[in-house]
Amino acid sequence: MEMSRLIEPRTLRGFRDYLPALMIPREHMLEKCRQVYRSYGYAPIDTPALEYLEILKGKGGEESDKLIYSFRDHGDREVALRFDLTVPFARFAAQHIGKLGTPFKRYHMGPVWRGENTGHGRYREFWQCDFDTIGTESNASDIEVVLVINDLMTALGFERIEIHLNNRLVLNGLLEEMGLAGQTAAVLRALDKLCKVGKDAVAAEMAEKAGVSRGQAERVLALAEMQGGNREILDHLRREFGTNPRAAEGINRLTELLDVATSVGIGEERIRLDLSIARGLDYYTGTIYETFLLDKPDIGSVCSGGRYDNLAGVYTKQRLPGVGASLGLDRLLAAMEEMNLVPSVATPAPVVIVQFSPEYLGEYQKMGRALRAEGIRVEVYPEAKKIGQQLQYAEKRGFNVALIAGADEFAQGMWKLKNLARREETAVPAAEVPAAVRRVLGMG
Amino acid sequence: MEMSRLIEPRTLRGFRDYLPALMIPREHMLEKCRQVYRSYGYAPIDTPALEYLEILKGKGGEESDKLIYSFRDHGDREVALRFDLTVPFARFAAQHIGKLGTPFKRYHMGPVWRGENTGHGRYREFWQCDFDTIGTESNASDIEVVLVINDLMTALGFERIEIHLNNRLVLNGLLEEMGLAGQTAAVLRALDKLCKVGKDAVAAEMAEKAGVSRGQAERVLALAEMQGGNREILDHLRREFGTNPRAAEGINRLTELLDVATSVGIGEERIRLDLSIARGLDYYTGTIYETFLLDKPDIGSVCSGGRYDNLAGVYTKQRLPGVGASLGLDRLLAAMEEMNLVPSVATPAPVVIVQFSPEYLGEYQKMGRALRAEGIRVEVYPEAKKIGQQLQYAEKRGFNVALIAGADEFAQGMWKLKNLARREETAVPAAEVPAAVRRVLGMG
Repeated sequence: MEMSRLIEPRTLRGFRDYLPALMIPREHMLEKCRQVYRSYGYAPIDTPALEYLEILKGKGGEESDKLIYSFRDHGDREVALRFDLTVPFARFAAQHIGKLGTPFKRYHMGPVWRGENTGHGRYREFWQCDFDTIGTESNASDIEVVLVINDLMTALGFERIEIHLNNRLVLNGLLEEMGLAGQTAAVLRALDKLCKVGKDAVAAEMAEKAGVSRGQAERVLALAEMQGGNREILDHLRREFGTNPRAAEGINRLTELLDVATSVGIGEERIRLDLSIARGLDYYTGTIYETFLLDKPDIGSVCSGGRYDNLAGVYTKQRLPGVGASLGLDRLLAAMEEMNLVPSVATPAPVVIVQFSPEYLGEYQKMGRALRAEGIRVEVYPEAKKIGQQLQYAEKRGFNVALIAGADEFAQGMWKLKNLARREETAVPAAEVPAAVRRVLGMG
Repeated sequence: MEMSRLIEPRTLRGFRDYLPALMIPREHMLEKCRQVYRSYGYAPIDTPALEYLEILKGKGGEESDKLIYSFRDHGDREVALRFDLTVPFARFAAQHIGKLGTPFKRYHMGPVWRGENTGHGRYREFWQCDFDTIGTESNASDIEVVLVINDLMTALGFERIEIHLNNRLVLNGLLEEMGLAGQTAAVLRALDKLCKVGKDAVAAEMAEKAGVSRGQAERVLALAEMQGGNREILDHLRREFGTNPRAAEGINRLTELLDVATSVGIGEERIRLDLSIARGLDYYTGTIYETFLLDKPDIGSVCSGGRYDNLAGVYTKQRLPGVGASLGLDRLLAAMEEMNLVPSVATPAPVVIVQFSPEYLGEYQKMGRALRAEGIRVEVYPEAKKIGQQLQYAEKRGFNVALIAGADEFAQGMWKLKNLARREETAVPAAEVPAAVRRVLGMG
C-alpha cells in the first residue's frame, strides 16, 4: 500500500475514544449506577438513538433545536439523533404506558448527541444516566430521588457532596400572592442567572420581562438568597409564606423529605435547602435537585432533576406527572480525570500467566480456567517472548501478579508466583495457586 | 392542549424500544459478556457513534456502503454512523497503538446502525459485542477465542451449542497447489453460498468468476464437504494436503487448538471442524469461527470471527495482525424471545414494600435501606393505595415478596412477609426481615 493512500485516523471534533485506562472506570461507574437504580426497583429501558425529527424537535426550546443532529435517511424521512433521554422517554411513555401501567419507574443510560460549541471541555457525544418515577404525584417518589442521589454518589466514591434542594411551589406561592402567577417562567429564567450576573441584573431582567416591581423583586431575591440551616430556613419559610396554600404545600414536601432523609440516616451535611436553584427548564413544577462535589464545585451540578406535572403532553392526553434526575456520567468522569482519581490501570485482569513455551499452552489455559472458576480474572500472554519482556508488559499495563511455569516447574508441580508491586517471588504448589493469588489480591 | 396537536408517539421502522421485560435480560446478557471478556484480560474500549464518512466508507464493500447512515453535520463535514465495531477499531488501533502497545486485547460492546431491509426481523439498530487480540500471530490467541466463545455461551445459558472451526490456510494451500492462489477471494465468495444454492451452482460460479475447472471445483467441494469426527478430518487433511506448507500450517493450528480445548475440558461435542465455513469476508486469512444453537440453528451463527493478517492497513503502515469474534447480542435475544426463554419479569427488584400510610415513609425507607445493605433490591410503593391494589401491581410486575406494616405491626415491632408465588403470609420481627427475605429468595 502506498503511503499517499493512507487515511488519517482521527475522530470528529467534540468526540473522543475511550482507551482502557479510562473505559475501565467508566464501566465501573455505569455498573455502580445500574446497581443503585435497580436496588430501588427502577427498571432499565432503552430507546433508539435515531428518532423522527418531529418527535425530538421543539421540546427543549430553539437553542436546543439548533444543536440537534438531523438529516434525511434512506427513506427520505427526517430523522435525528437524540439530544437527551427525557424527550425519548416522554415518547416511550406515551406509546407504552397502557402496557406498562403506573406507577412506572425506569432508568435509562446511554449516549446523547449535541452539536455544541466544543469549548470548555464540552463533548458532542456524552452519556446520561436518567431515572424517573412517573404516574404519581406522591412525595414518596420525590423523597426517594434524594435517597438515590445519595446512594449513587456514595457508590461512585464521592463522600464529600452536597445535594441542593428547592421546591418551586414556594416561589409560585409568593408570585401568586403578589399577583404575578402568570410570570413564573420569566421570573425563573431571570433567577437562574443570579450566580452569574448578580442581584441588580436579575431584578432588571425581571422588571423588563415580567413587569416585576423593585419591591417585588426584592422579596423574590430575599427568598432566593435565604441563608441558614435547613430547619431554620423551613421555619422562616413557614412564618413568611405558610399562609399561601401553594407555598405551604411546597414547604410541607421539603419538610417531609428532610424528615425521611434524617430518619434513614443520611448525614444532614449532605443535604442543603437552597432556594436559589431554579433550573431554567420550564417543565419543573415542584421539588428541584442539584448535586455538587465539594472538592470540585466549579464543574457545576453532576446530578440534577425535579418534579414535573406532565411528561408527555405533546404525545398523549394521559397526564403523566413524575419526578426524576439525570447523572452526568461523562462530566463526572472528566472531573475525576482532572482530580487524578482515575488509576492508570489498563487491564481488567490483575493476573498474567507468562508463556514460557507454547507446548504448555494447555497447562496455562487450564490454570487460567481454575483461576477464573474462583472469580479471578487472568490473561495468558499470547507469545513465548523473553520473560523479562513479558514482565515489563505486565508492569506497564498494571497487572498485580505474574504466574510463571516452564519445564522445571511442571516437573515439580510448582508455579512461581510473582507479586509485581513488591517484586517478591514465591514458589507455590499448583493446586494452591488460586488460594495464593487470592491472598496477594486481598480477595480474602 | 387540543387533540389535533398531538404528535403520534412512534419509533422509526427497523428501530425498537426495549421495555423492562426485555431490557432486564439484555442487561444481564451484556453483563455476562463483560464478565467473560474481562476474565480473559480483554480490556474495554469505546469509540464515537459518529465518525468521518471517509473513515467508515469503502471498508465493507459497495453493498455495505449503501447501508451506511451518512449526512453533513453542522460544520458541513461528511459524517456517518458506525456500521460495525470493526472499522472503528481499525481506526482506533491505528491512532492509539503507539500508546497502547502490543499485544492489545480489547472488547467493545455497543450499537451499530445499518439502513437494512427490515424483512426477516432485521433491525436497523442492534448491539454488537466484539473481542479481539491484535499485534500477534500466535496461535495462542486463536485458541483463546474458542475458549472465550465456549465460556460466553455457557454464561449466557446456552449449553447445547456447536462451535464450527475452519482455517483458510488449508483451502489456500489447495488452491496454491492447483495454481489458483490468486483466486482465493472469488472461490470463497462462491463457497460461502454452498448451503443456500448447492454444489452445482457453486461450481458454476467458481468456473465463471475464478476460472476453476470442473475437476478443480470437485476437489475444492470435496474439501468443503469433508465429513467425520474432528480427529478423523485432521488425519485426512494431513494425508491429502499435509505436504503443502501453507495447508500444513493451517492443519497444525487446528490440531493445536483442538488439543488445548480438550486439555482444558471443553466437551468434544461442542467443537466441530467444518471446512465449509468460509465467511464471505475477504479479510480473514486463518482460523474461522461460527457458533450455532443446536435448538435454533435457523438463526445462523450467533458468534463469528476469524484471524486477519492486517487490521488497519488503510490507516497506518504498522502491520497489525489479529484474531477475534463478534457476538450478535440482539439476534441472540430475539432468538430467546422466540424460544420463550425470556421471563416476563418487569422489575429488577424482587421485593416491594407496601405503603400503608405515608406517615411511615421513614420506616419503609429504613427497611429498604437495611435490605439494600444486604444486597436485596427493594421498591417502596409510592402511594398509600388500597393494599389489594398494591399487591395486584406487585404480582403483575413479577415481584416475589411483599412486605407490609401499618400501625399494629409497628406497635408490635413486626412485619408481614408475603410470599407472592405461594400466597403465604408470615409475621416476622423487624430485625429478622432481611434474613427471612433472603430465605424466600433462595439467597442462602
